[in-house]
Amino acid sequence: MDFAFDERTELLREQLTDFMDTHVYPAESVLAEQVAAAENPWATPPVVEELKGAARGRGLWNLFLPGEHGAGLSNLQYAPLAEITGRSPRLAPEALNCSAPDTGNMEVLSMFGDQRQRERWLTPLLEGEIRSAFCMTEPDVASSDATNISTRIERDGDEYVVNGRKWWSSGAMSPDCRILIVMGKTDPDAERHRQQSMVLVPADTPGVEIKRGMHVFGYTDGDHGGHAEIEFHDVRVPASNIISGEGEGFAIAQARLGPGRIHHCMRAIGMAERALDLMCRRVSEREAFGGPLADQGMVRHWIAEARIRIETTRLLVLKTAWLMDTVGNKGAHTEIQAIKVSVPEMATWVIDRAIQAHGGAGVSQDFPLANLYANARTLHIVDGPDEVHRRSLARRELKKHA
Amino acid sequence: MDFAFDERTELLREQLTDFMDTHVYPAESVLAEQVAAAENPWATPPVVEELKGAARGRGLWNLFLPGEHGAGLSNLQYAPLAEITGRSPRLAPEALNCSAPDTGNMEVLSMFGDQRQRERWLTPLLEGEIRSAFCMTEPDVASSDATNISTRIERDGDEYVVNGRKWWSSGAMSPDCRILIVMGKTDPDAERHRQQSMVLVPADTPGVEIKRGMHVFGYTDGDHGGHAEIEFHDVRVPASNIISGEGEGFAIAQARLGPGRIHHCMRAIGMAERALDLMCRRVSEREAFGGPLADQGMVRHWIAEARIRIETTRLLVLKTAWLMDTVGNKGAHTEIQAIKVSVPEMATWVIDRAIQAHGGAGVSQDFPLANLYANARTLHIVDGPDEVHRRSLARRELKKHA
Amino acid sequence: MDFAFDERTELLREQLTDFMDTHVYPAESVLAEQVAAAENPWATPPVVEELKGAARGRGLWNLFLPGEHGAGLSNLQYAPLAEITGRSPRLAPEALNCSAPDTGNMEVLSMFGDQRQRERWLTPLLEGEIRSAFCMTEPDVASSDATNISTRIERDGDEYVVNGRKWWSSGAMSPDCRILIVMGKTDPDAERHRQQSMVLVPADTPGVEIKRGMHVFGYTDGDHGGHAEIEFHDVRVPASNIISGEGEGFAIAQARLGPGRIHHCMRAIGMAERALDLMCRRVSEREAFGGPLADQGMVRHWIAEARIRIETTRLLVLKTAWLMDTVGNKGAHTEIQAIKVSVPEMATWVIDRAIQAHGGAGVSQDFPLANLYANARTLHIVDGPDEVHRRSLARRELKKHA
Amino acid sequence: MDFAFDERTELLREQLTDFMDTHVYPAESVLAEQVAAAENPWATPPVVEELKGAARGRGLWNLFLPGEHGAGLSNLQYAPLAEITGRSPRLAPEALNCSAPDTGNMEVLSMFGDQRQRERWLTPLLEGEIRSAFCMTEPDVASSDATNISTRIERDGDEYVVNGRKWWSSGAMSPDCRILIVMGKTDPDAERHRQQSMVLVPADTPGVEIKRGMHVFGYTDGDHGGHAEIEFHDVRVPASNIISGEGEGFAIAQARLGPGRIHHCMRAIGMAERALDLMCRRVSEREAFGGPLADQGMVRHWIAEARIRIETTRLLVLKTAWLMDTVGNKGAHTEIQAIKVSVPEMATWVIDRAIQAHGGAGVSQDFPLANLYANARTLHIVDGPDEVHRRSLARRELKKHA
Repeated sequence: MDFAFDERTELLREQLTDFMDTHVYPAESVLAEQVAAAENPWATPPVVEELKGAARGRGLWNLFLPGEHGAGLSNLQYAPLAEITGRSPRLAPEALNCSAPDTGNMEVLSMFGDQRQRERWLTPLLEGEIRSAFCMTEPDVASSDATNISTRIERDGDEYVVNGRKWWSSGAMSPDCRILIVMGKTDPDAERHRQQSMVLVPADTPGVEIKRGMHVFGYTDGDHGGHAEIEFHDVRVPASNIISGEGEGFAIAQARLGPGRIHHCMRAIGMAERALDLMCRRVSEREAFGGPLADQGMVRHWIAEARIRIETTRLLVLKTAWLMDTVGNKGAHTEIQAIKVSVPEMATWVIDRAIQAHGGAGVSQDFPLANLYANARTLHIVDGPDEVHRRSLARRELKKHA
Repeated sequence: MDFAFDERTELLREQLTDFMDTHVYPAESVLAEQVAAAENPWATPPVVEELKGAARGRGLWNLFLPGEHGAGLSNLQYAPLAEITGRSPRLAPEALNCSAPDTGNMEVLSMFGDQRQRERWLTPLLEGEIRSAFCMTEPDVASSDATNISTRIERDGDEYVVNGRKWWSSGAMSPDCRILIVMGKTDPDAERHRQQSMVLVPADTPGVEIKRGMHVFGYTDGDHGGHAEIEFHDVRVPASNIISGEGEGFAIAQARLGPGRIHHCMRAIGMAERALDLMCRRVSEREAFGGPLADQGMVRHWIAEARIRIETTRLLVLKTAWLMDTVGNKGAHTEIQAIKVSVPEMATWVIDRAIQAHGGAGVSQDFPLANLYANARTLHIVDGPDEVHRRSLARRELKKHA
Repeated sequence: MDFAFDERTELLREQLTDFMDTHVYPAESVLAEQVAAAENPWATPPVVEELKGAARGRGLWNLFLPGEHGAGLSNLQYAPLAEITGRSPRLAPEALNCSAPDTGNMEVLSMFGDQRQRERWLTPLLEGEIRSAFCMTEPDVASSDATNISTRIERDGDEYVVNGRKWWSSGAMSPDCRILIVMGKTDPDAERHRQQSMVLVPADTPGVEIKRGMHVFGYTDGDHGGHAEIEFHDVRVPASNIISGEGEGFAIAQARLGPGRIHHCMRAIGMAERALDLMCRRVSEREAFGGPLADQGMVRHWIAEARIRIETTRLLVLKTAWLMDTVGNKGAHTEIQAIKVSVPEMATWVIDRAIQAHGGAGVSQDFPLANLYANARTLHIVDGPDEVHRRSLARRELKKHA
Repeated sequence: MDFAFDERTELLREQLTDFMDTHVYPAESVLAEQVAAAENPWATPPVVEELKGAARGRGLWNLFLPGEHGAGLSNLQYAPLAEITGRSPRLAPEALNCSAPDTGNMEVLSMFGDQRQRERWLTPLLEGEIRSAFCMTEPDVASSDATNISTRIERDGDEYVVNGRKWWSSGAMSPDCRILIVMGKTDPDAERHRQQSMVLVPADTPGVEIKRGMHVFGYTDGDHGGHAEIEFHDVRVPASNIISGEGEGFAIAQARLGPGRIHHCMRAIGMAERALDLMCRRVSEREAFGGPLADQGMVRHWIAEARIRIETTRLLVLKTAWLMDTVGNKGAHTEIQAIKVSVPEMATWVIDRAIQAHGGAGVSQDFPLANLYANARTLHIVDGPDEVHRRSLARRELKKHA
């Protein structure tokens, strides 16, 4: 057992921290200005493209992707880097071409796409030239239960015909979003987890109707392509656009979710670190009732608890990454569920306390805290609500004692 | 001891509930459309004016104001009515001319204003013709400690000259906002609580510079006049615009805060009831893993806890109202602090669980929940953060045992 | 709505508070000495009998019992008195002949007993001459589900024959315990809630085997007759010993539980008040790191929260008592469940924080805190665990919205 | 970074787990019987001596002690072993000669004792022939602040004279306890952390008066030598009995507390694992309302949360052990504080939920749960209360951001 990072990781952490200090944090106020002045509220602000160039120049690019198509880092090596990008989640992940949902989509294409699919879509995604969306969640059903999926993908000759309604398709409002991975049922009568398939749907295919952007609290996340509600009306794509084959949808979703969940958790820890950082600074600067807020017992309590909760959950994330590397995503299933539940709980708590320490400033646009909170709060819901994960985790625990 | 409402209260509750059902809830989607289509994001949407007419026609007007200028209800009578308006907080309070900060400002003018001030400003406010703002909080200091206030109000001949910077002046972005009540120091060398004064500053006075609207978790609250940051540069008003006299600012603020805090708490209970209502409906409609969400143990736990927490905190709010009526605001000081802390805690918890039960829909614009959450969350901060109230409440408790 | 106690209640509160100050609190150390020196660990210590005489002499006797057989107080009148006795739960309730399980048993006999049964058992109980036990809970099943009850009560000629095993029969270790009310099934094939009956079993009936006293944490509660495990081997009682009739057991249990639960809750609030009292004194006396503990932010937080939680839950208990008085126990069902869940949660929290404020002394025999904690902790379990109450409460709430 | 245990650790874990299964768990009921039948309530029960022999025979002996005098394990190697012993905390730690306070005292003698002291006291302790006590906490002051210590150790010729009062001297009620390490002030006027010294006081020295055993939630912990209150009246020991030298007391205490705290935490994790184990078994066996308790949502929630909290805190304990091994106790200071706070919080929560899942059985003597709870609860207090650790941890965090 050894808790030190390896050399490559330490080096990358150093380079990335330097990049954050010199490029990312200073760009945050620029982003705010460009967003306020934007003509198209869904377009990528210019400062993001500049950051992408700078990051790529430093070799900080596609770090999330193991294997030949990416940087080749293990999950354990990538984890602390993803954490650092979480400190500025609207800029850093995208700057490094490591932002959801593109990361998950690149993984899907890398693992399950055929050569044609990879050339057509994976290559420009890896280059950061286009963006993509993942269309799974549906407005009309509790879609954490995959058997509830109501979108249909029907074979018709050489084509698949897609009909259905999706929402929370993140990034799909962006003019740069060119390709959608759509989950639907090809065979509603098949075995529970063989009913679903995934097809690649170019965003400009006739019948694809982007209805609106969903809000998260009062945020549209427009600079990041928003979260689209999309209707598919008799949308036709070549049969070759199916990923991996009919009935593979559930398995692909599962394969995609493992890394997706851990990436979310890594970044959420960075978000909490940022919040703690801001809290410590604020309470050191402000005075009330005869001394700095930092001297108040409750404030100290928050800071200590924040530090403790960050440390404990981070270790579980790192161990989960290590398990994914050593025994595979399936072997790490329990731990993935554990972090999926515990990290958002920690992050929302820490950020909420940082907000409280800031007073009115904390909920405002002057600090990233309220935005971080909204972001962290959604992690209790996305990729399956806490309750589903806890229930499943308990079932496994009970089996151990049976 | 008797836990039944009196006859007048029961009648008004019935009338108000009917008004909510027939007018307010149906207007919520209209409001959303008008806000989306508004040219001036800070203007009052037309539907609000319609509701005001309808409410007034039913005698549901100025219910908050005791005494001759208002409806003459006691706090205990008004409490359950305010709660009901809290179920639709963007529409109902204003429809009844019972929305903050106008209510507090009307109370100040009613209690401390001279006849000229009342005629000039209280009358149109009571008529719902204009709106007003209260400028106390400052961006540069922890203003929960009133001695930190840095805005200056200096006498110069027949005038007062105001210099300083305020923020979170709710409603002040509205074109209907005509009058600002500004707190500042007239004598920084006076005794701790005699340094502050309040002056009436017409919104169009030269030197009043409305800088921007503050956001609350991404929301601008534009339909309600937003929350302004305002700079005062050598703003001159007649000396007669002082309220009650020099050095009275702290006392007026205290007098204003008692009712203000309990009104917030009453409405927050209504917000929680609305959230519980939505949660119960949602979980009864949605199915996952073989049954309605309503059958899941955790969901039942939330619902039971929500009901319990609402009931307990509501009773304390009602008792506080009764104390304010029977022994005065000072005699109810401890209870006012207790509800100021416990009601927001209850409300944010209930609303958060309702969000969770809704999944992605819960954080979106399709349900009022995320907006309710943002609203309730600020109550931990406005009118003094929880920590200040708890500390003071504990000091009193310790004295009892000394 | 009126939050003031009536005159009779105020007078009794005064008299009882005086009795506590002059008799009960001083007797606590005497009790400890007598318990340490006792030959029979299950016998009633002499000081208890002295207190009973003193209380009765002051008219503080059988206050719990409404109607002709008792003091004739309403639930709302008794509630604040029961609370006061909870401040010294090992002495005060019994001193006033108001201690469980005798109170519940007296209620059962008063409401459902025939004249012979009342004369034989109710009279000496009301006189405080004997004690009694209630045998419902069983070791082998989850007995919060009454259909799980496995004890059999079988008719055989003019007798009933009881066979089964019970535990947590409080008071039954005491040599003064003369009568047991035993719940069992007379007809396992009847409708769900008509299977159970209750019979009166004199403690000295052949076949009644008192096996042992159960511990609560490390306490035996010996001075209060402990909590017995009892085996019933072919125990024969006259058929006339059945209470109310065959199949009435569930209904009697329900009728008994309503007041029983609220009494527990009332006393638990007194326990929390005692703990808060002790905490305030302790932190005012002890110094660490340059000042009294009372000046530390966390300590103040605990004190404020304790005060707030006590106030809110007390109000719900009082309202529940009022409902029981005005609409009956059935009409107060939801509220009874609500206090059964929320009061123990409040009480364990407050007592736990008081323990923490005392350091090692808090868990020791030098303060009543650890004993209060053990007592309050069991309230999450007795008369049905929290989970059962919350689930049932939620079901009712969901029906309202259906 | 590597989360696998090394080979030696894995081997020892296997051997120890086997020893637990074959010897320790079966001995638990034997212990209960021997304790019930004991003549001297403070004597070591025979079964403990048997276990010591069996453990030593397997080489499971003095595992806690690094370096030449002990088994030579690192903290990281010992941690998972200590955890396993925590599953049966009244038997396993002592069986392996690894129980507090002897472990800490052996560390003190090993690190700071001179040769004579080591021969005289360390040797028989390492052999498990005698027991020892550590006399630091005092009843009259908040002794988490070392400057509050009021016991005096005064030089008088060739002797030191000890006067003062201590309590919570664990083990000192045991007839096997032969040696006390006493902390007192030799120079009250010295610099804050140089006032204190430690002396070795044989238990039979004249003037040492063992007053009584303290209770912990009703438990006396008699089989483990209890927790004594001790008065020192002009107790004279040779000057050579001072440990390390005058003024070294605070430094020795600090050195002792680091490992002491982590040992407590390791065992507490084992206690939580035991509780989770018992909970899983119980809910699988019991049925209520139509199915096993294990199917209820709340029960699953508890189990999942228990697993998650155990995993996260365990990792922090392991990392802390690794830090102590690699950068020393001082370098691990923050982490030691973090686990000292977070592990007891986790453990009390898990055990409390296991109690709840057991109903009345959970608080009784039939399961180890209530005893485990009492044990875990004290960890929030011993070796400094949570609040002291959090405050200090926050101060360090604030410095990082200063």
